[in-house]
Amino acid sequence: MTSFPASHADLIEKSQILVLGTNGADGFPQVTALWFLVEDGTIRVSLNTARQKTKNLSRDPKVTLFFVDPENPYRTLEIRANATVEPDPDYVFADRVGAKYDGANLREMDAPGQSRVVVSFAPVKVNTFG
Amino acid sequence: MTSFPASHADLIEKSQILVLGTNGADGFPQVTALWFLVEDGTIRVSLNTARQKTKNLSRDPKVTLFFVDPENPYRTLEIRANATVEPDPDYVFADRVGAKYDGANLREMDAPGQSRVVVSFAPVKVNTFG
Repeated sequence: MTSFPASHADLIEKSQILVLGTNGADGFPQVTALWFLVEDGTIRVSLNTARQKTKNLSRDPKVTLFFVDPENPYRTLEIRANATVEPDPDYVFADRVGAKYDGANLREMDAPGQSRVVVSFAPVKVNTFG
Repeated sequence: MTSFPASHADLIEKSQILVLGTNGADGFPQVTALWFLVEDGTIRVSLNTARQKTKNLSRDPKVTLFFVDPENPYRTLEIRANATVEPDPDYVFADRVGAKYDGANLREMDAPGQSRVVVSFAPVKVNTFG
């Protein structure tokens, strides 16, 4: 169970996407926008194992989540976190993510032979701005 | 002179802020939102040298810029870039940034004894999404 700072918890509620920063093998941070779900106070995403970001955080679990207030880009929330990866071969978690996003079917986003994982983020340090 | 992909160049025009990812000394990406200026095709920001992000990119110039379409969070632009740092002791560049942002005075954001640098980003790899 993780709690987020009360002053900026609304950013997690309001944001359609989170911004994920991972450590790329080329030495550059990799930054992408992702669908996410909050379950029992834990932020989670569903990733295709073929993606570079999945490889990055499997190799180095030190990641950063970033939320920008859609109504005020000067209010932001940065969460440095350790990522843990679990298999989701039957799309059980992926279906819960899809349900949040207008019933999207994440199976249709994957090529044959690809698979899904659940990535959960355990916060290490939280910074708020604005 | 740098050109950005025509399909997503509007994100740079429309965004009030850019998201900057740097490599933190603790091994986590550091992610923050920043004012920026585009001059002669180069994206630049004005940073206070006391800030952690300034220390990060001075130590390791491999950074990533990220833009999210304010009207559609599924359209994004990721620019991995090398950062170069130049002094701006007289706030010449900082004043140009302030002029873009309703005449903000960046001097007032700094404590006595702190100083400013101009950080310019030379793109290495560009990824678009959406």
